[in-house]
Amino acid sequence: MEYLFENITAVTMDRDEPVIKGAYIHVKDGKIAYLGTVRPECEAERIDGRHKVAIPGLINCHTHVPMTAFRGYADGYDLQTWLNQYIFPAEDRLDDRAVAACTDIGLAEMMASGISSFSDMYMFCDTIAEHTEAAGLKMNIARGLTCFSDEFDFRTYPSAVETSELLGRWNGADGGRILVDACIHGEYTSNEKVWRSVAEFAAENSLGIHLHLSETKSEHEQCIQKYGRTPARVFADCGVFDVPVNAAHCVWVSGDDIRLMAESGATAVHNPVSNMKLASGIAPVPELKRAGINIALGTDGVSSNNSHDMFEEIKLAALIHKATTFDPKMITAFEAIEMATVNGARAQRREDSGRLREGFDADIAVLDFDRPHLTPCHDVMSNLVFSARGSDVVMNMVRGEIIYKDGEFLTLDIERAKYEMERYVLPTVCGVK
Amino acid sequence: MEYLFENITAVTMDRDEPVIKGAYIHVKDGKIAYLGTVRPECEAERIDGRHKVAIPGLINCHTHVPMTAFRGYADGYDLQTWLNQYIFPAEDRLDDRAVAACTDIGLAEMMASGISSFSDMYMFCDTIAEHTEAAGLKMNIARGLTCFSDEFDFRTYPSAVETSELLGRWNGADGGRILVDACIHGEYTSNEKVWRSVAEFAAENSLGIHLHLSETKSEHEQCIQKYGRTPARVFADCGVFDVPVNAAHCVWVSGDDIRLMAESGATAVHNPVSNMKLASGIAPVPELKRAGINIALGTDGVSSNNSHDMFEEIKLAALIHKATTFDPKMITAFEAIEMATVNGARAQRREDSGRLREGFDADIAVLDFDRPHLTPCHDVMSNLVFSARGSDVVMNMVRGEIIYKDGEFLTLDIERAKYEMERYVLPTVCGVK
Repeated sequence: MEYLFENITAVTMDRDEPVIKGAYIHVKDGKIAYLGTVRPECEAERIDGRHKVAIPGLINCHTHVPMTAFRGYADGYDLQTWLNQYIFPAEDRLDDRAVAACTDIGLAEMMASGISSFSDMYMFCDTIAEHTEAAGLKMNIARGLTCFSDEFDFRTYPSAVETSELLGRWNGADGGRILVDACIHGEYTSNEKVWRSVAEFAAENSLGIHLHLSETKSEHEQCIQKYGRTPARVFADCGVFDVPVNAAHCVWVSGDDIRLMAESGATAVHNPVSNMKLASGIAPVPELKRAGINIALGTDGVSSNNSHDMFEEIKLAALIHKATTFDPKMITAFEAIEMATVNGARAQRREDSGRLREGFDADIAVLDFDRPHLTPCHDVMSNLVFSARGSDVVMNMVRGEIIYKDGEFLTLDIERAKYEMERYVLPTVCGVK
Repeated sequence: MEYLFENITAVTMDRDEPVIKGAYIHVKDGKIAYLGTVRPECEAERIDGRHKVAIPGLINCHTHVPMTAFRGYADGYDLQTWLNQYIFPAEDRLDDRAVAACTDIGLAEMMASGISSFSDMYMFCDTIAEHTEAAGLKMNIARGLTCFSDEFDFRTYPSAVETSELLGRWNGADGGRILVDACIHGEYTSNEKVWRSVAEFAAENSLGIHLHLSETKSEHEQCIQKYGRTPARVFADCGVFDVPVNAAHCVWVSGDDIRLMAESGATAVHNPVSNMKLASGIAPVPELKRAGINIALGTDGVSSNNSHDMFEEIKLAALIHKATTFDPKMITAFEAIEMATVNGARAQRREDSGRLREGFDADIAVLDFDRPHLTPCHDVMSNLVFSARGSDVVMNMVRGEIIYKDGEFLTLDIERAKYEMERYVLPTVCGVK
């Protein structure tokens, strides 16, 4: 299909002209063939853009999508009780059928709130990849890898083997819609042998590494106690930062950690809601920014959020650092949207994503700005960050395919997913009768 | 009209049974005539409650509703430039016609996101009251009062005279739908003579006082420099806390301030989004709670938010204090909803509001829980706080009257308000061509 958006406000995210009003966007062969204020000659299906704002599809750089099963599950317990008595035992009961339903619920949430691409770390990756491909989203997928054994061998350890298989089956699948990342779950869930092996594997296969970094104070300090070095430093000493790293959280990173991340070109994935909900703290985003680190945004799994709405992360990323620095200009509206688009694309190593620009993938989320809470609109960027919600998204197009429109999921059977969640996942996995 | 909600999940906010599933709610003469799990005999119009959650209408305890004109206006300037060069000159150009449109936009936002009642402080109060009465919301209105003159006389000073007139015309109007509060804008915008006069006026007329308290560090510290006492203490010394006080912000209140607020029965209105956006800081809600102070929630005017969606304040109130105390159990989901309902009603001195209970006003917001981001629902309270958004509200009933349903505003001409905003307010007030 070819489409022509007419008279739309286009948020390009190019610094020289970030917002173009009265724009035409011609979408052809999954790409943006034209973006400008002159009506192009074409036979495309027209889409009326009046009162609408088109933004680059949002990029959620850290989640565990099947954790939708655990939205609000055993909320109100302390972290260790919650993990050990509820989440881990329930995760042990997951199977492909459950993960299929849980994934579809999470994908639907993301589709409905304008996300075009996400980075996931979990188990049952084939199922996640199949459902994501079917739904039409882009994804960087990583098989969560935890191991304490000194006998660790990438060629035989089950989740490492799964990573290799995933690589063969999915990396670059569907014209690059699915990419595979290597994974280290975290410093506190593995050891030096694992870190060296994963770094080597990633380097050999030109992969990035998706990992959790210094999320909690205790994890950060216990590492220093154990190794005399921070998690980022022990990772770096094993070659982990020699490949592109997507480091989720970074709440407790030190000044030295920040320098080494900046030098290596790593991405820090900021997850403000999750970090607050789990009482982990507030990431030093102003310092990360000052060091020139690429900062992306993530929702984390919805069990610690409890939503996949990136507009919440965008607003919070723009708000919370103003409060901690007492500087009302800290993290501008533009910078917050940049984290969710341009910087996310860089983190996912998708050079043709994250902007509305000719030649880029036609990943376009359309918001209806003709709503009371978006009236008036003195400043498109400000309204996007401080007034819009995921529910203002009325169309989600990924690579030129409309996957969501006006409440309808065009590539996913949401009723089936909800039925499966209720009838299969809750009794089987969560023990809910 | 009589209504009967059938098979609905009712969030009563009673501590002994906060959530009742499969509930029937019979609404008659503006009141909740019955709430329970047995179907009552009645001739009421039935409302299907399957997959729906009914909550007490939310109470927004601090806003300046006509400031919708300034949503995102001159965003990105520092506070003093923004106020002095943009907001104050624009406010000087407001008139009744402009305020009418601006109020309607703000009311619509609130109606669409489940707010039944709000506390406002602004100018042009007759216009605000007329439009609020017509739209069917409840409101406590206060005429903003600022004055530095030692000649201040409540009987002759213009905004004090307006307060007296407002009292005669509107206090208790429409069966108590509109109530009038006295007002001290803030310590830094008035003097002792004003505080004593307002306290006397409020005491004589059995009114509460709506004021800003210790919102910014500089305002708090300059007061100590000037008077050798904090703003709360200088107010108390003038009798202000001898009447019920609604103190917005309270970001910088001291331990002594907290004690005197607790002893006087004052309400602290927490405005987390506004306090972050203006880089004021984070209110010491854990300390306020420990002292037993009634804590309500407010959006503040949308020029410093930029939204009237109380679900954002609720989620942030539940999140942010977890991050600052490193305690994942700090401010539970129940407590966050309590701030937005029960505590708000107490702040507004509306004893028959804020809960779903027989004999209470039928102020009921209905949310559609059959949505991907609310699936599954292990815990209604958790989903309400951490997963729901204002856009999940599908019906807003105030005093038994449905004022909003499925995107339709039944008591307000939203198209006219948007037209007026575009054609009159923006060019006249904001200088937008």
